[in-house]
Amino acid sequence: MQQVIRIFGIDPGSTVTGWGAVDCAGARLTYAASGVIRPKRTASHAEKLAVIFSELRDLIQAHGPSEAAVEETFVNASPRDALVLGQARGVALLAPSLAGLPVAEYAANTVKKSVVGRGHADKGQVQAMVKVLLPKCGQLKSDEADALAVAICHAHHAGLRKLEAAS
Amino acid sequence: MQQVIRIFGIDPGSTVTGWGAVDCAGARLTYAASGVIRPKRTASHAEKLAVIFSELRDLIQAHGPSEAAVEETFVNASPRDALVLGQARGVALLAPSLAGLPVAEYAANTVKKSVVGRGHADKGQVQAMVKVLLPKCGQLKSDEADALAVAICHAHHAGLRKLEAAS
Repeated sequence: MQQVIRIFGIDPGSTVTGWGAVDCAGARLTYAASGVIRPKRTASHAEKLAVIFSELRDLIQAHGPSEAAVEETFVNASPRDALVLGQARGVALLAPSLAGLPVAEYAANTVKKSVVGRGHADKGQVQAMVKVLLPKCGQLKSDEADALAVAICHAHHAGLRKLEAAS
Repeated sequence: MQQVIRIFGIDPGSTVTGWGAVDCAGARLTYAASGVIRPKRTASHAEKLAVIFSELRDLIQAHGPSEAAVEETFVNASPRDALVLGQARGVALLAPSLAGLPVAEYAANTVKKSVVGRGHADKGQVQAMVKVLLPKCGQLKSDEADALAVAICHAHHAGLRKLEAAS
């Protein structure tokens, strides 16, 4: 029987953080779970980060993935916005790392290329392709689809690494 | 007897994170402890963040502060550098927040003004004034002095808040 690897994808954001778990058995991908974390707008930076971290930690424990992948958000923001986004991203990298998972990072363009076939696909195209690749996912929020996309991207790259190792 | 409040200051950085604990009894400040956290240069982002978080968590537990203050690093970096710095900053805000401490944030200029009297003081002047205000601190690394400076800044602001509340 082929080994199933569960991949936990995270799309961190300063207001909404998407997450998604995908099971990967060779080239076959299956939807496991997904959702968004949305701390209260009125909370302080520190309180928002505590919410994102605690929810990610609990989700990782509940869904038991063996690998994690985080989107390397494309930065065309101001340095100040990049700093705030970086804070959420730090917590998104930390949660799986503390849980002992290997954490891969992928640039947004790499994720889009892996899922849609083009590095400059828009959010709607990513969402549509995630639904094609994971038909059981149902209706998805945009950040949820992005998190599943980074998990799919990691699955494709993990498959490639395996082929390279075998050749 | 006057209540002593221990303040834990953090100066987060992508390569070195400074920390320092200061005891505050009314207007009287006393040095408690300080140091730097320096993850291996060769580690991944996620591994570095896990080291910064774990050490801060252990230090906060060991020194038992009741409040925390984090420097709002001045951002004249590129968006990419700001993102990486933000990752370390997110973890520096998270550690005291998860420990249940209130976390205050101060802009670098506010910290300098509070410690040296001018918002555009250089690192050497900050270091010299920290030694004057906390004579027991001994020889300090620059990031250690910055972390003690943000703790001192918080003590000054906490004192002001108390005066305002009493008036």
